[in-house]
Amino acid sequence: MSPRFLILAEESFGPMTSKTANGVIRYTPENVVAVLDSSFAGRTAQDVLGFGGAIPVVPTLEVGLALEPDALLIGIAPQGGKLPDAWRQIIADAIRHRLDVWSGLHTFVGDDPEFARLAREHRVTIRDVRKPPADLGVATGRVAREVDATVILTVGSDCNIGKMTAALQIRDGLKRRGSRVAFAGTGQTGIFIEGWGIAVDAVVADFIAGAAERLTLDAAKAADIVLVEGQGSIIHPGYSGVTYGLMHGTLPHAMVMCAQPSRTTINNNPWLRIPPMPELIDLHERVLAPLRPAPVIAVALNTFDLPDAAARDAIARTADETGLPTTDPVRYDPAPVVDAIHELHERRAAVAR
Amino acid sequence: MSPRFLILAEESFGPMTSKTANGVIRYTPENVVAVLDSSFAGRTAQDVLGFGGAIPVVPTLEVGLALEPDALLIGIAPQGGKLPDAWRQIIADAIRHRLDVWSGLHTFVGDDPEFARLAREHRVTIRDVRKPPADLGVATGRVAREVDATVILTVGSDCNIGKMTAALQIRDGLKRRGSRVAFAGTGQTGIFIEGWGIAVDAVVADFIAGAAERLTLDAAKAADIVLVEGQGSIIHPGYSGVTYGLMHGTLPHAMVMCAQPSRTTINNNPWLRIPPMPELIDLHERVLAPLRPAPVIAVALNTFDLPDAAARDAIARTADETGLPTTDPVRYDPAPVVDAIHELHERRAAVAR
Repeated sequence: MSPRFLILAEESFGPMTSKTANGVIRYTPENVVAVLDSSFAGRTAQDVLGFGGAIPVVPTLEVGLALEPDALLIGIAPQGGKLPDAWRQIIADAIRHRLDVWSGLHTFVGDDPEFARLAREHRVTIRDVRKPPADLGVATGRVAREVDATVILTVGSDCNIGKMTAALQIRDGLKRRGSRVAFAGTGQTGIFIEGWGIAVDAVVADFIAGAAERLTLDAAKAADIVLVEGQGSIIHPGYSGVTYGLMHGTLPHAMVMCAQPSRTTINNNPWLRIPPMPELIDLHERVLAPLRPAPVIAVALNTFDLPDAAARDAIARTADETGLPTTDPVRYDPAPVVDAIHELHERRAAVAR
Repeated sequence: MSPRFLILAEESFGPMTSKTANGVIRYTPENVVAVLDSSFAGRTAQDVLGFGGAIPVVPTLEVGLALEPDALLIGIAPQGGKLPDAWRQIIADAIRHRLDVWSGLHTFVGDDPEFARLAREHRVTIRDVRKPPADLGVATGRVAREVDATVILTVGSDCNIGKMTAALQIRDGLKRRGSRVAFAGTGQTGIFIEGWGIAVDAVVADFIAGAAERLTLDAAKAADIVLVEGQGSIIHPGYSGVTYGLMHGTLPHAMVMCAQPSRTTINNNPWLRIPPMPELIDLHERVLAPLRPAPVIAVALNTFDLPDAAARDAIARTADETGLPTTDPVRYDPAPVVDAIHELHERRAAVAR
């Protein structure tokens, strides 16, 4: 069970500045007692983000403690990687008040001698969610041999394009249809939301697929459909290794392609043109084929920056170009993607019977 | 300049058991003063391996010290990862005798409190070659914009199939033709041989391509042709992430495909059939194309386990199937591959002029 979080977002809460905090608030508001940011004290998450309802923004740790959180969640990354002194003070005080600490920082809070000592003294747990399990191994394709569940991986034309959000919307849609579905988080936000997972981009390179394999095996224990959160893109010059490792470790039965119609080149890499959708889909199917032939069965577009008419146009055009069910699962009904997954699973289950 | 190595291979020296030691002996015998293995004392490397000439095998550190090494090279990995006490004693004594320590172990020798203390006391350097540089970043395709040298990457149908050996044979062939060529090592053996490099499989997943990018930029500073040592395979279920990251970080102008004709399934993964060579070549070209269109221009076969006639048959058949220059660059003349690279470089240089 997830703890009740007080989210630390001091001087950083906002629609564009606190991505991790916002993901947790959007998908598991019931786990959030308050957001700590003195600059927005007295407002609600809804006021600041446009979602999140009545979750209050509090000015100090003390005010937050009155709402009885179990853990402090550090969902923002400091500029330059070093924790500001004000944050250090808040974290230390939170530990003294017996809050666990959940952190998505690259620098592990539990490795800090002061925090480690305080945590021991006050018997609280520091959970650095980006810290890989110590006993990861090299992947050996076990998913293909041992998993009966239908495994779906979200892939994308770029990083930071909505793969996690799409997966979560799809999960909710499948749940509403009565499916036993698990979401396997591969990044910090996904892990905060689900309470478990592995940040695959933080593992040693040899173990990317091994981490993805373990995640998939674990998720499949109590689910008929496993939705794995994708990372990066197979055409991203920096992150492609993580993406390919995820594909080959999870060995999905099908992929859902995520893209942003308004984006034509890779984030921060204007020299790198994103290929047309049918080409990109073909490439994904080809690279997976030697290990597990599996199709892209649906497209999830992120149209947040387009007017409604342009968004609907982009969806219709993509559906036409690819011949695949297409939607924006956040803005519109996720049913086209949800139905495609549901049908694939029913077909697999019928064959197995 | 590389140090003069005393190679620690205690109770492990042999053709199949000391891969790293053997690579160093094969390619830089001039850097090796002796091998320490009491079980073969009195023999030569040639006696034990079938190559390496008169390099003596010595029974103790003391006998080795008489040959005036600069460094102890730990080229074998202990079973289970823990250093046997006998090795610890040898390493400690070597440091006391002012030898540097070069290690390819997964567990870093320099992180061991006893060895670290001794190294400080005796002012020697412990060089853990698998330890990644601390300041790696995410790759951004700089090779494509900043490198004039011709970049060649060896790729392969599987891991442990001769990609490093092929690259080194090709390097020697290019040197003989007068080319200014650099070998960029990406694994421990390659790093020992060249004295520099980055073990890309040991970096954090986010930085695989970044490590490959830095290696390529560094190698290109003093070379017209850069040969990058490949790792893994794009169809390997465990290591593909590293392979793809290498491809997208090095952005080669061309690739050399390495394969072992007698191997039909992936090492330790009998469920995974290796596709026919033309398919595999096509897949490599397709996945690189969105970032840098580049062909496979030659094939290097590893035929060590075939009789001569079967080896020549395999080479002729592969050349026929692929339409590419093909050879076993260890067993036969590497010229077909060397010439293909040389011609590509001349063509690029002519365009640049």
